[in-house]
Amino acid sequence: MSVKQIKESAYRSGGFIGKYQRLIKDEAEGAEKSGVVENFINAGMVLRGETPYGDFYGMVFQDSDAAKWLEAAAYSLANFSDSELEEKADRLIDIIAAAQDKDGYLNTRFTISDKEKRWTNLLEAHELYCAGHMMEAACAYYEATGKNTLLNVMLKNTDCIYERFIINKNGGCPGHPEVELALMKMYRLTGEKKCLELAKYFIDERGRDADFYNKEAARRDWTVWNANPSDTAYMQGHLPVREQSTATGHAVRAVYLYTGMAELAAETGDKELLDTCKRLWDSITKRQMYVTGGIGSTVSGEAFSVDYDLPSDTAYAETCAAIGLIFFGSAMLKNEIDGKYGDICERAFYNGVLAGMALDGKSFFYVNPLEVIPGISGKSPNYRHDLPQRPKWYACACCPPNVARLVSSFGKYAYGESSDTVYCHMFADGDVTFENGVEMTCETNYPYDFTVCYKVKKAERKVLAVRIPGWSKKYELLLNGKILGTRVEKGYAYIEVTSGDEIKLVLDGTPRFVYPSSKIHTLTGSVAVMRGPLVYCFEGKDNEDDVISLSLKTGEGLAVSEFDPDLLGGTVTVTASAVRQKASEELYSDEEPQTCECKAVAVPYYVWGNRGEGQMRVWMDKA
Amino acid sequence: MSVKQIKESAYRSGGFIGKYQRLIKDEAEGAEKSGVVENFINAGMVLRGETPYGDFYGMVFQDSDAAKWLEAAAYSLANFSDSELEEKADRLIDIIAAAQDKDGYLNTRFTISDKEKRWTNLLEAHELYCAGHMMEAACAYYEATGKNTLLNVMLKNTDCIYERFIINKNGGCPGHPEVELALMKMYRLTGEKKCLELAKYFIDERGRDADFYNKEAARRDWTVWNANPSDTAYMQGHLPVREQSTATGHAVRAVYLYTGMAELAAETGDKELLDTCKRLWDSITKRQMYVTGGIGSTVSGEAFSVDYDLPSDTAYAETCAAIGLIFFGSAMLKNEIDGKYGDICERAFYNGVLAGMALDGKSFFYVNPLEVIPGISGKSPNYRHDLPQRPKWYACACCPPNVARLVSSFGKYAYGESSDTVYCHMFADGDVTFENGVEMTCETNYPYDFTVCYKVKKAERKVLAVRIPGWSKKYELLLNGKILGTRVEKGYAYIEVTSGDEIKLVLDGTPRFVYPSSKIHTLTGSVAVMRGPLVYCFEGKDNEDDVISLSLKTGEGLAVSEFDPDLLGGTVTVTASAVRQKASEELYSDEEPQTCECKAVAVPYYVWGNRGEGQMRVWMDKA
Repeated sequence: MSVKQIKESAYRSGGFIGKYQRLIKDEAEGAEKSGVVENFINAGMVLRGETPYGDFYGMVFQDSDAAKWLEAAAYSLANFSDSELEEKADRLIDIIAAAQDKDGYLNTRFTISDKEKRWTNLLEAHELYCAGHMMEAACAYYEATGKNTLLNVMLKNTDCIYERFIINKNGGCPGHPEVELALMKMYRLTGEKKCLELAKYFIDERGRDADFYNKEAARRDWTVWNANPSDTAYMQGHLPVREQSTATGHAVRAVYLYTGMAELAAETGDKELLDTCKRLWDSITKRQMYVTGGIGSTVSGEAFSVDYDLPSDTAYAETCAAIGLIFFGSAMLKNEIDGKYGDICERAFYNGVLAGMALDGKSFFYVNPLEVIPGISGKSPNYRHDLPQRPKWYACACCPPNVARLVSSFGKYAYGESSDTVYCHMFADGDVTFENGVEMTCETNYPYDFTVCYKVKKAERKVLAVRIPGWSKKYELLLNGKILGTRVEKGYAYIEVTSGDEIKLVLDGTPRFVYPSSKIHTLTGSVAVMRGPLVYCFEGKDNEDDVISLSLKTGEGLAVSEFDPDLLGGTVTVTASAVRQKASEELYSDEEPQTCECKAVAVPYYVWGNRGEGQMRVWMDKA
Repeated sequence: MSVKQIKESAYRSGGFIGKYQRLIKDEAEGAEKSGVVENFINAGMVLRGETPYGDFYGMVFQDSDAAKWLEAAAYSLANFSDSELEEKADRLIDIIAAAQDKDGYLNTRFTISDKEKRWTNLLEAHELYCAGHMMEAACAYYEATGKNTLLNVMLKNTDCIYERFIINKNGGCPGHPEVELALMKMYRLTGEKKCLELAKYFIDERGRDADFYNKEAARRDWTVWNANPSDTAYMQGHLPVREQSTATGHAVRAVYLYTGMAELAAETGDKELLDTCKRLWDSITKRQMYVTGGIGSTVSGEAFSVDYDLPSDTAYAETCAAIGLIFFGSAMLKNEIDGKYGDICERAFYNGVLAGMALDGKSFFYVNPLEVIPGISGKSPNYRHDLPQRPKWYACACCPPNVARLVSSFGKYAYGESSDTVYCHMFADGDVTFENGVEMTCETNYPYDFTVCYKVKKAERKVLAVRIPGWSKKYELLLNGKILGTRVEKGYAYIEVTSGDEIKLVLDGTPRFVYPSSKIHTLTGSVAVMRGPLVYCFEGKDNEDDVISLSLKTGEGLAVSEFDPDLLGGTVTVTASAVRQKASEELYSDEEPQTCECKAVAVPYYVWGNRGEGQMRVWMDKA
């Protein structure tokens, strides 16, 4: 296999995605928000022997805020021209470059002070995590603008890392995976073998010496958070990665690691590693994933729990983890074309990720419950992390810039290519230009319209491979108006195209009930509503301020509204026949509660919580 | 009102309760289990200037283990003659007496060492908590045996406490309430006014100075558990108690406090305090109580959560808290005769308390979930406290001896009396002698037989007041075989009796479905099964190892088995018509799952977990 992502600059977005990308560009908070720019300025002053303006501000991962902001800015610049934004980014890059030490070391926490602590706390200090994000930013900025200042900084930083871990064999791997996937991006872009070698090293080093972090902790007299060096499963180091079969530990760390592994497998053809990735993919998507694509169900360590432990109300389901799952799925698609990956990427994007951001782009959920009860959610000790409304910003600002960089690089995940084929993994309105010469336009109002039209502007004996979503019970494919009987292989239809061809895919937009596995004890007797890739939810606002008294009559079908451009940024509601239990005074009663017939109105999950505080429920009782 | 409890020695048990009381006597672990006897020996040696055998062993509340063991032993001696047990108790009392300091101070933690720390940490150090339990033991032992050694020790201890808090006005009240209710017992038994005065002081002092514990903490350089002195709600000190309306904080502390308040109100006729107790009773029983009578739904602080937050699977519902709720209800019955108190006491006893102990009396639940899923319960971080099987013993051994003392003093809670009336709050087979001269026998196999027969052996123009349980939709009362049309007032039937009368109460043993309030979001769409006071549950053992796939058909009635003496210590099963969802491979599916009709078999909740590990569920989905 050699399917690769396109550059974001190869995709000019329109439609639903384009609107979101513009929102991100216009509303994304600047990196200066978290004090991170000052950190780089101060680090540069220290390196020049000047007195810094102040101490390091924030937490050990603070540098990554700047990196994620830069990466998102790069994608925005690939999508929209904006000289002001580009100047702002250039200035920040100069500041970052000035904060790099002579040996290539780049981390403000241990440059402003405590130089002797560099590399002494791989468990917690996030040096390689921050480096990884900066590498991703460097690649994105180079691809978007052709400017290589930051890329050169990060190649020099790679030399520094290479010297420590490969040449000097100092041992260990980062407590928070990220650098692995970043090194693979660097390698793909620059061909620098050190990047590949380092990625492979960090992947295979993990779990090799179960006692590494304990030994490391014994050598130093400081910690960041008092993290337990023995809890290696938390950072996926309980076993050599190739022996792992169950996704475990901190969910973001897990999917970042698995993404790096899948990227490495795609690049090297490492079948053993790919098989490991397939097992871990199944462990997540078959036993540990919310219907929204959210993963990491427990607040305790922001982590995977055990199989089938997927509570709706105490869910963690961090936005960043759903983002990481898309990275993982996208990396798997470089190894094998299978619709199951795109199905999950799409599920996670339209539900688990988009719900993380308010419709105005100004507030964010870190945690994404599938059920919210004002008075309990955010109040009860068990639900303190599950908030009924999006806060403005977080001290640990990982999710907002992560949403920004994912949304603004949607084209990279929507399209792929090989020498003779263009792949449409997800549906994205707009123009796209492939390196193999194909140029085409996609016209669609997906996910609110289920017709996707590809107009091939330029192609010579190429194949268009389009994912047929697993949820679409029926579909039609038309080539220049004629129905095609194309065979679908592992979820993709393969159509030969030439310049001027028009391929129309008509999917099934019938709303549907979705049923949980009987092994999920918190979901027995319940049912959810989906339409296309969108999970729907029931909000108090549309349902007399009380959705938990409603149960759905699954025998009676679902009604779809017209698209309402004025509702929640433009959306479609789905209405179910329902039964409402009348409120009773007693806590427990021997009398069967009275009920009345009614309608229950659902809106897409990604728009929930945009109309003030109220009840919200995805999984409804069956009447 | 002046309804008082009977002495346990006035009741000679038979039937279901008698069997449990014998089990407790034969199986209760001795106080020596927790090292507590050695603590008293060592404290005595220190006081005599000898070198102790060792340091203080255990935690600050360790002395209370001895006290609860002694109290339970006293009740056992009231119920059964056992000279070996009495000698053991006498020896322990002598050891305890020798550990009392000259000024009456009695606490091994601060006698073996750290004398200067006495009274400097009311927040955490449990000195008054331990004193309270020892006072309860002293009262029980005097009532059971007529021996006053321990009672005199505790009167001297009361002097010591009185001097500190009343004479010297040193301020403050205990972080863990308990001494209040114990002082009320001491006052009732001895008439010592200092006890009453101290109880009133500790009750009204709570919440008076919101900053007390902070100031206390600032004065010392040590802590026990680093408890947060500002979290006054945890110990019900966020407001003066008379201003409180919502049961809050650590559940055991709360109900112990409210019991003391209700006892004080009954003794003094303090209407304001009684009104407070009524509000708090409603707060618990109308909005914060499990169907089992369990209270304190969150593991976080073993505490009350917010109204209607009653999750089955992550429940805390500590056994001791259900016991404390019975204390509270029983104290309320001294203020006003109302069937609602007995209804809750009975619910808590037969479900929330009895489930805490294995049928062999050898292992105990501290935490009482209403749903257990092996593989998740005890494993997932959210459910680590909810165990599928009872452990043998706990480091914090509060629940086992608490069950022992409650079960072995059941008569005190079952019967009450005033000068002209005998009250039957709960049904308890056996003989009972009242101070007002009435002697009678109660014959019943309750809770498995719903006929209760009172044979009045001696009575002159007295009234028998019998609680008619709220759950009994119909009932019959017969006096010497003739049906009575007695008026029921607030849940009690009042019947004039004389010697030789036989009163038969026939209750409704029809099993019934119970429905939760629509405000409990975790219970929507579900239903439970009860029969009489017994909550039933469904265990894997009786249901193909999978109860969560079952949903109950509430339209089809419930079938009751014959009493099976060989099943789970002798019990009756209830069978419902049900639908079983067939297992599906997919985590989420668009296909409605296949189902088949079947029967679902339930056993009483109090016997669950006695046949190995398996699924258990109280609240079942409605088909």
